[in-house]
Formats: sequence, structure tokens, C-alpha cells
Amino acid sequence: MAICCYESAASKLISISTSPPTNLSKPNTCFFSVSQTLRLRCNLSLPSKTLVTEPQPLFTSVKSFAPATVANLGPGFDFLGCAVDGIGDFVTLRLDPQVHPGEISISDINGNSSTKLSKNPLWNCAGIAAIAVMKMLNIRSVGLSLSLDKGLPLGSGLGSSAASAAAAAVAVNEMFGGPLSVSDLVLAGLESESKVSGYHADNVAPAIMGGFVLIRSYDPLELIRLNFPNEKDLFFVLVSPEFEAPTKKMRAALPTEITMSHHVWNCSQAGALVASVLQGDLKGLGRALSSDKIVEPRRAPLIPGMEAVKKAAMEAGAFGCTISGAGPTAVAVIDDEERGREIGDRMIEAFIKEGNLKASAMVNRLDRVGARLVTSIPR
Amino acid sequence: MAICCYESAASKLISISTSPPTNLSKPNTCFFSVSQTLRLRCNLSLPSKTLVTEPQPLFTSVKSFAPATVANLGPGFDFLGCAVDGIGDFVTLRLDPQVHPGEISISDINGNSSTKLSKNPLWNCAGIAAIAVMKMLNIRSVGLSLSLDKGLPLGSGLGSSAASAAAAAVAVNEMFGGPLSVSDLVLAGLESESKVSGYHADNVAPAIMGGFVLIRSYDPLELIRLNFPNEKDLFFVLVSPEFEAPTKKMRAALPTEITMSHHVWNCSQAGALVASVLQGDLKGLGRALSSDKIVEPRRAPLIPGMEAVKKAAMEAGAFGCTISGAGPTAVAVIDDEERGREIGDRMIEAFIKEGNLKASAMVNRLDRVGARLVTSIPR
Repeated sequence: MAICCYESAASKLISISTSPPTNLSKPNTCFFSVSQTLRLRCNLSLPSKTLVTEPQPLFTSVKSFAPATVANLGPGFDFLGCAVDGIGDFVTLRLDPQVHPGEISISDINGNSSTKLSKNPLWNCAGIAAIAVMKMLNIRSVGLSLSLDKGLPLGSGLGSSAASAAAAAVAVNEMFGGPLSVSDLVLAGLESESKVSGYHADNVAPAIMGGFVLIRSYDPLELIRLNFPNEKDLFFVLVSPEFEAPTKKMRAALPTEITMSHHVWNCSQAGALVASVLQGDLKGLGRALSSDKIVEPRRAPLIPGMEAVKKAAMEAGAFGCTISGAGPTAVAVIDDEERGREIGDRMIEAFIKEGNLKASAMVNRLDRVGARLVTSIPR
Repeated sequence: MAICCYESAASKLISISTSPPTNLSKPNTCFFSVSQTLRLRCNLSLPSKTLVTEPQPLFTSVKSFAPATVANLGPGFDFLGCAVDGIGDFVTLRLDPQVHPGEISISDINGNSSTKLSKNPLWNCAGIAAIAVMKMLNIRSVGLSLSLDKGLPLGSGLGSSAASAAAAAVAVNEMFGGPLSVSDLVLAGLESESKVSGYHADNVAPAIMGGFVLIRSYDPLELIRLNFPNEKDLFFVLVSPEFEAPTKKMRAALPTEITMSHHVWNCSQAGALVASVLQGDLKGLGRALSSDKIVEPRRAPLIPGMEAVKKAAMEAGAFGCTISGAGPTAVAVIDDEERGREIGDRMIEAFIKEGNLKASAMVNRLDRVGARLVTSIPR
């Protein structure tokens, strides 16, 4: 059982904002503006000594869930993502007298690819995020043990690491009564993401907040939640081939320079994507999703059959289709579950026929909630 | 008095869409989807022979108005624009038996820079747009004369040519009972814009439609109207220096290649700008307006004092500031008219002090209506 202190992670967390602390009695300046969209802004200026009073645990055990996420969304490359209902990771967190106070251990990892993951909390997405939250809360009096149940496969383009981090961050926060804000939790998740997949919040922010989230800036961290209208249905057809998309290769495929005309095109499509989400225009959303002229054309050829899969999805009636995250999962959108299954079948066929890859499909709704408490046992 | 036939302009108009006509009895396929935003899509496939029945004029004279517009809006470069209330161009259109049926003449041009404008309808923004609408309507039985009253100065970055085109297009359409759709009118306006300032709809679309308009695509022309909430106030502080921004130089200053990081940044700000408009988040809108890392940094140094003017606007409390269109006008946004005047004064001072340029300021509301009929005299 690996055990670690949270100090090292915490010192990293401070680097999230380069702004100097302006008010030490108020380390996190956050504001919420809730109308049709939720906007979060957080000037995190954690002082080197934590100033908040240590909260007491309300539970002996909590279990949390965080959903899968689709990042990039075509022209939303690197700043837009959304959460997908029904699939994700679970974290069970327990007060553990065998763990040194102020520390956390990872007791079990089960599910998808569990043997590939480290139980050292410093090298595990869930562990890093949990440690970051413990630091924010100044937890010194109790030890915790964490059990991770992976519902998501690694490296599939569905935000696997972000889901683990989000579930862990929420679990620790809920264990102590939920004193942290959503943006604090995203910062904790970012601490984890930066170690495993780069300093990007386009998976972890929607994994925590649910719905669509636009990452407006990192310093300060500023997130805009884009509410897709409640009365409208939105289904994602997620088709994952048995193929490992080499992350380095996918990054290396990106152009370093972009022409002005492609920039203007993608920018306008990003704007159209945001407008389509907010107005619940699913067809418009699909068209925007499909319209990327910068990233998808470079990455799709690296995933065998991807171009044919997109074509098959569109011919089967999908409103739009692109690569989920860095792939290899393909994501299509539609407004009807049954129709989604048919589209998924056509996409699977195309992966087999054109890419010589077996694939599996899921049809899932937009997750509007994000990471959440599932069960809890009071003390 | 110059007179011309509309044939040559009309043949140009056909080139707007490369799609072949699929249904000759239905030359324009347009649909409207009105919710929080208005989306217009138009597959214009004008046949070489106009098939619609010629409408009869309802008036002997009509007078129309089209507002000034602010294009680009920082990260919305080349695809986003909005209309500004209270300033613009007027067009008076008369049935004129002295003009050959099916033709149009320009009788007068008054107001700002009127002596610089051609009275040849083929070389005048209003004339070109009027001819395009006459062609769409198949006007063959009456002749028209047009009088243009320029409220907007030329080359100021306030959409002067677009306002003339929009007012003329609306005047001709209204003269015959308004049979054309908004997207047809934008296409007519584009015919004019393409001859004087390039094939861009980010001035003429908001000049016709009012509010904020996102140009999603040109082939087919697809426009998304972004409704800024009615209950919220939005004022533009427009400060125009006595300086001619050399259009060629302003275009030449644009980078041909853009780094990936700048692309992602501007894309995310464009998304944030769209979200801010739709949710009525004026501060967010201002921040997005100010955030362009691609175009403004290249163009601002070409307008003496512009960087200091932006700084002065922000220090005086503006929510955001950038160059209006290609300049030289600077535009700032605020939610209060009186405060807007103070900001304008500071911006004028900065133009004088840092740019050695005299300047004048206006504070105007968002125009939510677009080009409109002002008066009409029935037959």
C-alpha cells in the first residue's frame, strides 16, 4: 500500500496563478454569474501556508462518480469539452486509521486497464487530484484510503484520466462537507491532468461541471459553462476501435503554423458551435463539429478508417462527426437514441471495412451534472 | 444623371453560390430558425433567367435607413459584426418615369464625403445593391431614381459602404412590397461589398439584420444572428481620429501564418465572445473584445495613438476596447451612456496626446433592428 504526503503536489498547485496573492485572508477569489450560462472565474493565489481552518470529515466513507468527456469537439480544439452520461469512473474514499493523518493511500484499482495504473498516489490521476484537494482543505488530522473503479479505458479519447481526477477531487471535498468551489475542484483536477496529459482543462472541467464547458483562460482560470437547453435531447454516438492512438504522434501531427484563412474559418465555426449549444440547435452543432479544417485533417489519417467512419456516420444521418479528444474514438451527434444505435452500427462497419479494426459503439446522452456523490456513510 | 441596366451586376450575383440550381421553380432555398438566435441559410442559385413574377410598386417613394456597423470585434475578425444605433445612411427611392423601365439612376448624393462618390450606379455601393435587388425581383416595368444621404464618413471603420448598400437593398425591396428574404438582401449587399471592400458580410449582414451577426459560411451563405438580451443595455463608444487608415496597408499588416497557440487563444476568445453576447454578459463581451492576439497587435501600431487610446478607455472603466473594422475608429463598450461619454473624452485626449490626432467621439446603443423603412408615399 503506497502512502504519500500531499506537500509536493500542493507546491505545484500554487503555480496555477502567477498573480501575487492580494488578500491572504481570502486566498481564492471566485465569482459566479448564473444566467443561461454559468461563468466561473478563479484567481487562485494559494498562500504557502494554508490559512483555512481544517474541516472535519462528515462521513466514514463516500463514493463518487465522474463522467466520460469529449474534448476538442472539432473547431473547439484545446478549449471546449463536454460530459457524456452513463460511463465514467468511480472513487470510493474511506477514513482510514491505518493511514498516517494528512496522508492518502490507494488501496485498490479495479476495472478497465487497472493493472496499468500506479497505486502510488503521486503517480495516479485520482491520487494527485485527491492530494491537491486535501492540501486546499488543510487536512492534517485524518488519513484516507482511496479505491478507484475504472469504467473508462485508458487512451481512448474519452477523458479517462480526467474522470479519475474529477471523481477523486469531488470525493475528498464531499467527505469534508463540500467546502470547495467548482473552480477549486477543477484546479485540483488540472494538477492531475498536467502530469499525465498536459495542462488542459477541456476534459477535467466538463468532468467536474457537466454539460459543455469553454476554457476561456488559464491565468486566471476562467471557465464558461454553456447550457444546452434542458428540453432538448442530445445523444453522442461513441465508437471506439481496438487501436492505440499514439498520443505523441497525435500531438506531433498538429501544424505549428496555420494559414489566416483556416484560422478565420475555424474561429467562425467555433463561434457557431458555441451559439448552437446555447440555442439548442443540434443540427448546427453537428455541422460545426464536422467543420474543423486544422486538427482533424491531420489526425484522422493516423486512425485507420476514421475518414470512412465519419462518412458512414454522416450518411447514416448523424448531424456531425469528429474525433473525440485525441482519438481513436469517433464521436457523432444525433437527437434520437435508436437512430444513434443505427449510426453506431454503420460506424463500426466502416472501422472494420476501411480500417481493419474491430470497434464497439455506445450511445449516451449529454451529462448535465458532472462529478457527483453517489453514496455516503455518515460518521 | 447616370443610368445603367442591372444585367451585368446580376450575372455576378449568380456566382455567390457554386451549387447548381436544383429546383428552377424555387430559385432561393432559405430557411429560418428563430429561437434565442436567428439562423439564416441561403443556397442562392439564381437562374440566368429570372422566373419570379414581376411585383408591382406599392409606393411612389420610399425612404430607408441603415445603421453603422462594427466589424471584426477583436477575435471575431472577418466573421462577426454588429450594428450601432443612431448613425447611418439614408436612401430615398422614387418611381421615375424619366428613367428607362428596368433601370436605376442616382440623382443626388449628400452628406459625408458625398463628392468622393460616383453617381454611376455600377460604381456606387447603393447603386450596385439596388441593381442586385432589382434583378432578383425581375423589375422591368418601372424606372427608379435613388438619392443617397451619407451619415457615415468613408473609410472610418464604421461600415460606410455596407450602410449605403443595406439602405438601398431594403429601399428597393420595400418599394415592391418586401418580397425578398433577409438573406436575399444580404446577398445583394454582398454584391456591393465585394466590389468596394472585399467579399465580406461582417458589415452588411448586421447593417441589414441589426444586432450581432456571425457569418458562418459563404457557400452557402449562412448567418447566425446572436441576440443580445433585450433587457440589457449596451453602448458603443466610437472615437474616430482625423486620420486615413490606409486599407491596403491594414490588410498587408495581417500575418499570413498564425501560431497554433495564438490560434487556440483567439478561437477560445471568439467562443467566449459569442457566449457573452447570447447571455448578455457585457463584462465578458468586453474582455473578449480586448483579447485579440492576432490582428489588433499588427494593426494598432499603424494608427497613431491607438494603443494609448485603448489603455485610456480601459482605465476609464470601459469593459473592452479594440479597433472598429480596419480602423481608424476605436470602439469601446460600456453599459451606461454617461460613463460612455467620459470614456470617450479620455480616448480623445489619448489620440491627441499620443497620436497627435484630433478625434471625435459618439456614444451609441446597439442597433437591434437593422436596415428599415423610414417613410413611404403610397401610389
